[in-house]
Amino acid sequence: MSQAPATSLQDIVSHAKEYGFVFPSSEIYDGLQAVYDYGQNGVELKNNLKNMWWKAMTQLNDNIVGIDAAIFMHPLTWKASGHVDGFNDPMIDNKDSKKRYRADQLLEGKAEQYAAEGQAEKAQELLNEMGRLLGDNNLEAVRELIIAEGIKCPISGTSNWTEVRQFNLMFSTQVGSVAEDSNLIYLRPETAQGIFVNFLNVQKSGRMKIPFGIAQIGKAFRNEIVARQFTFRMREFEQMEMQFFVRPGTEMAWYEQWRDTRLKFHQAVGLPTEKLKFHIHEKLAHYANAAVDIEYQFPFGFREIEGIHSRTDFDLKNHQELSKKKQQYFDNDLDENGKPFGNYIPYVVETSVGADRLFLAVFCNAFTKEMVGEGENQKERTVLKLHPALAPFKAAIFPLVKKDGLPEKAREIEKALKTEFRVFYEERDAIGKRYTRQDLIGTPFCIAVDYQTLEDNTVTIRHRDSMEQERVHISELKAKIGYAVSEQRILEAI
Amino acid sequence: MSQAPATSLQDIVSHAKEYGFVFPSSEIYDGLQAVYDYGQNGVELKNNLKNMWWKAMTQLNDNIVGIDAAIFMHPLTWKASGHVDGFNDPMIDNKDSKKRYRADQLLEGKAEQYAAEGQAEKAQELLNEMGRLLGDNNLEAVRELIIAEGIKCPISGTSNWTEVRQFNLMFSTQVGSVAEDSNLIYLRPETAQGIFVNFLNVQKSGRMKIPFGIAQIGKAFRNEIVARQFTFRMREFEQMEMQFFVRPGTEMAWYEQWRDTRLKFHQAVGLPTEKLKFHIHEKLAHYANAAVDIEYQFPFGFREIEGIHSRTDFDLKNHQELSKKKQQYFDNDLDENGKPFGNYIPYVVETSVGADRLFLAVFCNAFTKEMVGEGENQKERTVLKLHPALAPFKAAIFPLVKKDGLPEKAREIEKALKTEFRVFYEERDAIGKRYTRQDLIGTPFCIAVDYQTLEDNTVTIRHRDSMEQERVHISELKAKIGYAVSEQRILEAI
Repeated sequence: MSQAPATSLQDIVSHAKEYGFVFPSSEIYDGLQAVYDYGQNGVELKNNLKNMWWKAMTQLNDNIVGIDAAIFMHPLTWKASGHVDGFNDPMIDNKDSKKRYRADQLLEGKAEQYAAEGQAEKAQELLNEMGRLLGDNNLEAVRELIIAEGIKCPISGTSNWTEVRQFNLMFSTQVGSVAEDSNLIYLRPETAQGIFVNFLNVQKSGRMKIPFGIAQIGKAFRNEIVARQFTFRMREFEQMEMQFFVRPGTEMAWYEQWRDTRLKFHQAVGLPTEKLKFHIHEKLAHYANAAVDIEYQFPFGFREIEGIHSRTDFDLKNHQELSKKKQQYFDNDLDENGKPFGNYIPYVVETSVGADRLFLAVFCNAFTKEMVGEGENQKERTVLKLHPALAPFKAAIFPLVKKDGLPEKAREIEKALKTEFRVFYEERDAIGKRYTRQDLIGTPFCIAVDYQTLEDNTVTIRHRDSMEQERVHISELKAKIGYAVSEQRILEAI
Repeated sequence: MSQAPATSLQDIVSHAKEYGFVFPSSEIYDGLQAVYDYGQNGVELKNNLKNMWWKAMTQLNDNIVGIDAAIFMHPLTWKASGHVDGFNDPMIDNKDSKKRYRADQLLEGKAEQYAAEGQAEKAQELLNEMGRLLGDNNLEAVRELIIAEGIKCPISGTSNWTEVRQFNLMFSTQVGSVAEDSNLIYLRPETAQGIFVNFLNVQKSGRMKIPFGIAQIGKAFRNEIVARQFTFRMREFEQMEMQFFVRPGTEMAWYEQWRDTRLKFHQAVGLPTEKLKFHIHEKLAHYANAAVDIEYQFPFGFREIEGIHSRTDFDLKNHQELSKKKQQYFDNDLDENGKPFGNYIPYVVETSVGADRLFLAVFCNAFTKEMVGEGENQKERTVLKLHPALAPFKAAIFPLVKKDGLPEKAREIEKALKTEFRVFYEERDAIGKRYTRQDLIGTPFCIAVDYQTLEDNTVTIRHRDSMEQERVHISELKAKIGYAVSEQRILEAI
């Protein structure tokens, strides 16, 4: 095979739409910005990934259990977590174009321009100055800096800027009727707090002993002003988070262990080692004492797909203060002096995956254009090289022709396999076309039923990646395909 | 065994909390009304139910595929569906107590009172009158009726009522920044519309031929004024909906088929036939030409867990009108005259399950108090008789004692089984106590490792429901337990 043609994010977005993986949300009404719907194949791939993560957490580890907390939470939750006061972006409007921008992104754009002009030092100075001013929440000075740098609105071309204001990224809504008993609540901007407020409920009802973890998959919402890069940054997105509760002082060892375990997970679902890297945070969030991202090399560069954070006791301590309910654990393990460690607020090591980002990484990685065949017969094919356990369909069943009892025979095979794994059945069009269509959605095995099948109960299996075919007896199909497409195969690799 | 003690909803709520199935949301902040969190065992049971439904739809039927549309949708969606204009409850406030009530519920309460006093006819007349006035949206007359009937606020005891107003049950929020480009959007009050707006995307990208279905599981939100009965009516809840697109004129046959298929599903997940019944709607919603509920006998009476509705072309037609995008399908099957049926807007048969209601039904049904043992040894036990495939843990592994290599042997078995299904490991406390704890969370099999295990590699399996024990070789465990706890077993029963 000769060199593969290059692929771009645009190719991937088009393929995702054309083959039922990702559609723009409410497309018949011209869409809703930064919101996407998963189509018939996308939902299967995403569910398979979520399922693998869930089992990797709650089935492989006897000290990790799951929960599913509601999106609606008591508003004090977000006071305790710091989101009410601190989850903001600095915004500025141009008075002429009426367009709104993130003040920090305007300044970053200017710094990039300096860097592109070879003025790296000047670029760095500008970024430092911006960081300092935003750190002090000195918004008037941020505005002055934008004007002093001569930054203009790309629409109106003017520097006629409003003041800079902090804009909270949480969505809010009213719960209850419109009367005086109504309450402002938020759509959760992260799933982690649903775990923290349930820490003692789970620990007590599950008789959990530290160290233990609580895992959760669920939607979160952020009112991003500038959302972009397809499903990478959306206003509605899904997180897969696991909070691991440990004895204070042991958190760094667990942090390192989870960092390594999580990397193995991404490798097990098929992301190649050379496209993954760690990015250690030098500047830490207010709640963390160590943080590292696992980044994947998207077509638009290395970007975070998962964060591993040592969050100390920041969250539980704040919830304890605000709720006046002790968030303590009694540790009856013995210390070096033979005394129980006793009561403490646990430290937390968090692993947090963006489910939509993992989906996008796996999809980008699987999306392959390659030259196949030789000489005059050489042509390009597009194929999704997904891990077989993640593919929307595990196998497709094709009667060679639509007559002579072949469809009936193929239906028999479909019936025997479909309670075990998800199969596709098709009898329309030439068989080559049918293979091509399955390549486009990543089906690892195609089973063809032909005239020989009627004689000796054998079929051909065509392998997606190698395009090779082999002849096997129908009775071997479950064994031949079953394990190859099983979740177990991924779990064993973690 | 003698007669089982009676169980109440209160017993079930307590058990759900104590054993990690359902917690009140944000409990440390004294909760959020009508919102609940699923705990470590509840999430597994609920996920297993969702998974079974998903596979029953998209794996057993080669003409049904899934999608996962976002909660956020373009606001015109809810104009087309009728929710902006018509998804209201009539509310009335008492001026003295400042309490708010649903006007229809006040009148229904009065009618119930008449009925309890033996005045059945008067009760029926009141309900008819109310229905007529609400149908005409004559809210002033509804208020007059409340006053004429002498209905008083139970708090203040007065009839000092405000006017009646319609209150929309959709939650709304602002998307975008606070500038002039911001938009009011709604949290979806049902998942169905996510399917309708994607009808053509799925049909075209999936090359679907009518009849075909689109399935979806997801959250929906309704600002219920009076929510009650535990997870039965919540403000945030989850739906499992499948919209089946058919040729107009064939909808009644499909409606009947889906009604029967869906009943079989509920039986397959373990709900007994005598606790299920159909409730045919006599008064139909504006979009339906036939509707039936599948009801389950909860401790608080027979209530809907699923609705099957023949929705005609109501939704697709409205979306076509509002979006100006044709929502048509070209049917090249031939009619009785040998001509293709041609272009039409499909009719829709909907099956819609409340996932939280199904969870509650299965949980209530499994919750069993029974007398076990004989004579002086007779005692009560509580056990969750869940279908093995739905249980949070499929098996528990117990070393008889915490020494002599038994824990190591038990861990070996755990390791061999845990990539296949979810197992529980415990070595603390007497083995009888450990069995009891597994009964309380519904684990179907307990595997005990004892001294004999070290000699001949056999273990005992203790069966949850019969409490009988059998001795089997370790090598038989996968086969013995694997199929019994498999999803396949339920799928084969549908």
